[in-house]
Formats: sequence, C-alpha cells, structure tokens
Amino acid sequence: MESIRTITTGFLGLGNIGAGVWRLIEQTRGEIAAREGVRFSVKRVLVRDTLKRRDVSVPKPILTTDADDVLSDPDITLVVEALGGEQPAADYIRRALISGKSVVTANKLALATHWQELLETACVSGSCLYFEPGVCGAIPVIRAITDSLQANTIERLYGIINGTTNYILSQMSAPYAGQGPAPSAGGLSGQCGVSYADALFEAQRLGLAEPDPTADVEGGDAACKLSILATLAFRAHVPLEGLFRRGITTITPVDVAYGRELGYAIKLLAVAKRVGDKVEARVHPTFVPLSHPLASVNGSLNAVYLYGHACGELMFYGRGAGDAPTASAVVSDMIAAARSGCRGGERAYRMTGTVAMETDWVSRYFIRLQAVDQPGVLGAIAGILGRHGVSIASMRQTTGDGRAPLLFVTHMARESDVRSALGEIDESLAAIENVIYVEEGI
Amino acid sequence: MESIRTITTGFLGLGNIGAGVWRLIEQTRGEIAAREGVRFSVKRVLVRDTLKRRDVSVPKPILTTDADDVLSDPDITLVVEALGGEQPAADYIRRALISGKSVVTANKLALATHWQELLETACVSGSCLYFEPGVCGAIPVIRAITDSLQANTIERLYGIINGTTNYILSQMSAPYAGQGPAPSAGGLSGQCGVSYADALFEAQRLGLAEPDPTADVEGGDAACKLSILATLAFRAHVPLEGLFRRGITTITPVDVAYGRELGYAIKLLAVAKRVGDKVEARVHPTFVPLSHPLASVNGSLNAVYLYGHACGELMFYGRGAGDAPTASAVVSDMIAAARSGCRGGERAYRMTGTVAMETDWVSRYFIRLQAVDQPGVLGAIAGILGRHGVSIASMRQTTGDGRAPLLFVTHMARESDVRSALGEIDESLAAIENVIYVEEGI
Repeated sequence: MESIRTITTGFLGLGNIGAGVWRLIEQTRGEIAAREGVRFSVKRVLVRDTLKRRDVSVPKPILTTDADDVLSDPDITLVVEALGGEQPAADYIRRALISGKSVVTANKLALATHWQELLETACVSGSCLYFEPGVCGAIPVIRAITDSLQANTIERLYGIINGTTNYILSQMSAPYAGQGPAPSAGGLSGQCGVSYADALFEAQRLGLAEPDPTADVEGGDAACKLSILATLAFRAHVPLEGLFRRGITTITPVDVAYGRELGYAIKLLAVAKRVGDKVEARVHPTFVPLSHPLASVNGSLNAVYLYGHACGELMFYGRGAGDAPTASAVVSDMIAAARSGCRGGERAYRMTGTVAMETDWVSRYFIRLQAVDQPGVLGAIAGILGRHGVSIASMRQTTGDGRAPLLFVTHMARESDVRSALGEIDESLAAIENVIYVEEGI
Repeated sequence: MESIRTITTGFLGLGNIGAGVWRLIEQTRGEIAAREGVRFSVKRVLVRDTLKRRDVSVPKPILTTDADDVLSDPDITLVVEALGGEQPAADYIRRALISGKSVVTANKLALATHWQELLETACVSGSCLYFEPGVCGAIPVIRAITDSLQANTIERLYGIINGTTNYILSQMSAPYAGQGPAPSAGGLSGQCGVSYADALFEAQRLGLAEPDPTADVEGGDAACKLSILATLAFRAHVPLEGLFRRGITTITPVDVAYGRELGYAIKLLAVAKRVGDKVEARVHPTFVPLSHPLASVNGSLNAVYLYGHACGELMFYGRGAGDAPTASAVVSDMIAAARSGCRGGERAYRMTGTVAMETDWVSRYFIRLQAVDQPGVLGAIAGILGRHGVSIASMRQTTGDGRAPLLFVTHMARESDVRSALGEIDESLAAIENVIYVEEGI
C-alpha cells in the first residue's frame, strides 16, 4: 500500500459553495484517501466574519478575515476560491497562482473577465488553474473538452447554461409540458403560460433567482460560461466582450405559445460556431425544435450539446448549480490538481491567440408584428423583407378589431439584412413586438 | 517551447476501428503535438492479411501477421487493441500489460469477460489499461466516472448502451415520434409500428446490425458495457455472469403501441442500482416515461444517465459506435496514457472485491395477456396477482371475438412474486403474451 499524500489547502470563502465543499471533503475523506491516495487538509479559511454562526463544523481557529493568511502561507499548495464576484476574487486567484499555488475556482465571472491574465500567470508560474465547477456545476464538460475531445475539431456548441432562466422559461412553457408540437391550427389556441414576471417571482421565492436577477436574466452569467466553453472548444480566446447577448425579459406568453404551435421550445441558448476562420458566439432567447434533445432540458437543469468532426454529436446534461453539485466538481478538480502534483495542468488550455469574431451571422428569425389592419399592409411588409434578401419560410396572420397579429418565420437570413428590413417597417405598417432567433438543424 | 515526446505505438488490428484511429492520428498529428506535446509513432500493425487492399495509407513494411512483432518489441510502449472478440484479444492485452506496455482497447467483450485478470495484471506490472472507446464510443462516460465523480456515491445508473437495439426499437416506435403520450383512449388506436423482424432487416441493410445480430439483440453487448460501467460506478466488481439479461426479440408492435398509450417509450435499458449493500444489474426491454430524457434518445444514439449523491442527475449522450466516434475516444485514451507517462493509471479502477448481487429486485411490470373471454376470468387473474402480493396500478381490457386482450401495470412488486403469480395463470385463464419492466421515477 502506498502512502497517502496530504495536500494542504486554503479556502477563500465559506458561503454555500465553500461550505458544500467542506462537507463533501469531510464525507468522502476516507474513500478518497483509499482510492486516490490523497487527503486534503484545510489549513485556513477566509471569511468575512469569523463569529458568524454556520451550519458547517469548521474549527474556529482556522477561520481568518485576512486573505494573506491563505495567499502567503507557503504550506498551502492548493487554494479553493469560492468567493464569487469579479474582485477581489480575480486578484486573489492571480496572487495564488504567482506564488505557485494551484487554484480551483467556481467563479465564472472572475475567470471570464480575466481569462488571459489568469491563464498566462498560471503558465508562467507553472501553477495550475482548474475551473470545472465554474461552468455548469456538476456537469464535467470542461474535462470532456480538454481530456476527451482533443482529437476533435469542434464545429459548434450549444448550451442551456443558466439554470435560473431555464427555470423561468420552463415555467412559462409549463402548459405544454409533455406535448409534442400542436397541430397546425388557424390561430393561437387559447392556452397560455404564466408571464415572465410571475415566473421570475416564483424562481425568486424558490431561491433559484437572486433578488437582483440581472446577471441571470440579461444573459451575463451565460455569456461568461460561453466565453470559457467556446475558448476551450475552439482553442483560441473567445473574449467575453466579443459575445452578443440578449436576455429573456421581453419574452411573453404569446411568443411561447406561438413558438410551440410552430414546433419549437424557447430556451436561453448559448451558441458558438466556427464559420470559416471566424467564430460567432451569442447568448439569446432561441426557438429550438421540440424534437431536439435540448428542447427537453427543463427546469433549472443545464445541458451542453456539441458537434465534433470525429465524435459527432455529444450532449452533457445535469445540475448546473447548487452547493452539492458544485462541490462535486470542486473536489474532482482538487483531485486533478493533486494527481498532477499541482504542476503543469495548463497545457490543455493553451490558446493560439484571440479569435476573430463573426458578428453578422446567419440565422432563421421568428418575427412577431402587430400590423395595421388595412389592405396592402402584409404585402408591403413582405416586400420590405424581400428587398433586403430576407426570405419568408412561413407566415401566419389573424385579423380582428383593427389589429392584426402577424408572424413570420424566415429562411436563413443575415443579421444585418434583418435589422435593415425591420428598420424600414414603421408605424404606418406595423409595430414590431418581438424578434426571436430560430435554431434549426442544430 | 518544450520538446515533443514520441510514443512508439503498436496496433493490434486494422479493421474499421484501427483504420479510423490511424486516420484520426494522421489528421491531428500537428495539433496534438502542439497542444499536448506528444506524437504517436506507429511502429507495427498486426493484421490478418498484409496483402489486403485498404483505404488507409499504412506503409506496407509496418504490417505484420505475427502478434509478437507488436507484443515483444521493447520500443513499443503503447498498444492499441482493435481486434474485437474475446480471444486472442484478451490474451494479447494481458501479454502487453505484463511486459509493461500501456494498452488502449475498444474491446468490451475481452474486457468484461477478463476484467479482474486484466486489471490485476496492470496493477502488478504498473502498466495502464484504458478502455473509454469500449463503452459508448465517443461518449466520455468512463472518464466522467473515474475523473469527475470521485466524490460521489453513485446510487443508480441507467444506460441505452447498444445502438443497434436502440435503432430497432426506435424504428418500431417511429409512428409516434415527436408525440407526447396518447390521450388515454378506450382501446388501442389503429396506428402500429413496424415489426421487430422488419426493423432488424432495415438495421442490417444500413450496416447497423451484424448478419448474426445475436450479441446485440439478446443484450450481450449491453451486458458487457453494463458490467464495466457498474463496476466503476459502484467501485466493486460487478461480474458479467451476475447480470440478468433479456433481449428485444419478443417485443411486438402491440407492446410498443400499448406502452405509448400509457405514456412510455420502449428501450433496451441497462439498469444498475445500489440496494443496501448489494447491487442489482440487469439489461432488458424497459418502458421509460416519455417525460424522461432517456425516452428521447433515439436511433442508434447512446446515453448513460446516473444519479450521484452530490452531483445529482447527470446524463451523457452521443454516438456509441462508428469508426470516427470510437477513434475519438481511442486517441483521447492514447493522450491520457502519454500524459501519465504510461504508468500508474490503474488507481481509479482499484476495486474492493466483488459485489453481492441482488437478483430478486423490485420493479413495476407491464403484463400483457390474452385472456379467455369468459365471466370471472379477470377476477381470477387479479386474485392470483393479489395473493402473491402483486398489486395492480392500472388495468385495461378489450373484449371481442372470444379473445380478450388484457393489460396490467403493477405497482412496485418483487420479481419472485411476479414470477410465482404468472406461473399460476394457466391456459384455462389466459396466455401470457409479454411481460415488460416499467422503470418509473428514474
């Protein structure tokens, strides 16, 4: 029997995630020592308040409010960063890496906003930065890309990578759960789901959305994860600033219901594709065909679907958040750090510069208008779309009481063309109520 | 820039998989050298016939028909076994491991039937055995269990892990594709899918089933993979001989149609559960609720769904077979072997002995009978089930022309009780046409 190595560890933060990691380490200490030959000894834990009552049995003497007690302790070779927020977390991660410590972080914001600085610091100092828990919680998608798909050219990647918005959109779609596409009827069938506001309120009540839900519902959280996923998938930095982002706040029950009738589920989808030598990367509400496996990812669950030239289609599905799922990923990264001797784990993340972004992409579009109910209006709108090269795949009109709800789904069209066309549709013709991307042939 | 290490490699077999690996290595040589710092130099390739025309550009001089040219060459440190079949593959793997070579195998049969011998050989000699491509092709489920879920107690695991049978059952279910459960009608609606025989014929025509399909359709292939998956998940050997196995050959369009009306999809499901200190492991046709993500895994795709105490539910979905997906997994394992210096990779597979198997499990059952159309028969059958402690959750009867198709779905019942009850139902009451496991609350 070999000896068991002890890895002296420091925690930054003992909130939900930090406490979850502490508990999981305690629970699995014996098994992990036996199977992996490693034991994690937590020497210091940075907290804001050492006197706060906690439901986790961390000995008081190891608590500290001074980050230096973790970052400057030469005994500590592994740091678990679970503070959240961009700063001071990013700064602490950088300092830990500089001093040769390995870092496991669950912090997608600090990572995505300081990606190049942190990765370069790790490379230069020979320390390791692990971040599986930062992207989709327990789902081992980072390790899949870096350790299992190395021989693949990943061509496209789609993710439902924010549990809060997926919960809200699933609630808005709840009346249709378990149903296939509605038979193509003349108009909108009566059934409609709850409003965005009601679904958000419910998510907040359940603790699935923050009191200030902005980072989730406006797509910021998903954008951080997509930047990281796309960077790894395409092996070149896809910077957060280069991502197009639109949130879910404008999605209405009417959009959801019409989409369903057309055979689509609504998802906040993260999309990244190789297009020639460029990459497009965007996060926005998207209609996904009901027959696609991503359409069945409901509630607060996450999934990443990707296509590689050798592996073909792959999907990873599971819990993207929560103390225990995140702790599951943190501990796996701690073991990875221990296995590598806390050295040299950056190879897999070596990038070949920053990628050129394609911002004028091609997609299908769902366009919902409130047209003026007069003869010739439909023809005029169709004419404008046509003149801009936006070809109509299907159209639906319902008339009544002077207002005419009008739906178009386009064929593949260029973003700039759609914008130009919509810019020409003025009040004399219609009010544009919503425009939603449609992702066919995922 | 560090130097690039060359790993001298030998291939056993140059059939579809071997050739696929060769091609993928050729394609990705430059990238993998740059990113991973490793280059695979293939020195010898074992084939049956060196003169055979091949659509892969392997230099003639490295081909050999003598396995010793690979197994006894001290330069070769890594062996890719792609022969298939139990022997001589298992023997070659063992010999390679004994001489300190690492082995990557796509051979679930050799592995499952010689698990303990091969793993022990690797442990004793300090060599490494990798087998991601042997279980679900490109889906990185082995690495997920060994490298990402170490802190989890995996409680149950379900797999659609044979593409051939999933294709056949999907074809038999094709009329219902994209539909939710049918509204609960009085009798069986007219629509029925193709027969098992027709679906098998189509699978054979497409090359998805072998001319002799036994290993796939009788569940043998899935059982090998389940033995490996369950062994890793439960961290104790779950031997192939301990698995219950039933194939799909008795599934009829009528079963598929009735199941659909009850809200189920039919799948050849591999099931493994911890039950106290025992494990149950079985492969059989199973009704899965349509709302479960496994129900949407169609065609020749594979998926593994598992539940861990920390990670919660996780599903991995993708291509379980085919040259390129399998090669994707082989190359990732070759890189893993290279990263580990081709030493010591067995730690993750260390087992704590053989597990005790639970063979008298509890499940729900779908029972289809052809009852004698006489008063009192239904009552007599229900009485027999009741006396054996088998409680009925739902029942459906259609009468006509002297025959009475009768369906029961039971509540959770013990296998031995169901068998005893069915043993008492004789010809004077009904003919038992099919019994199918129902997996609720996956």
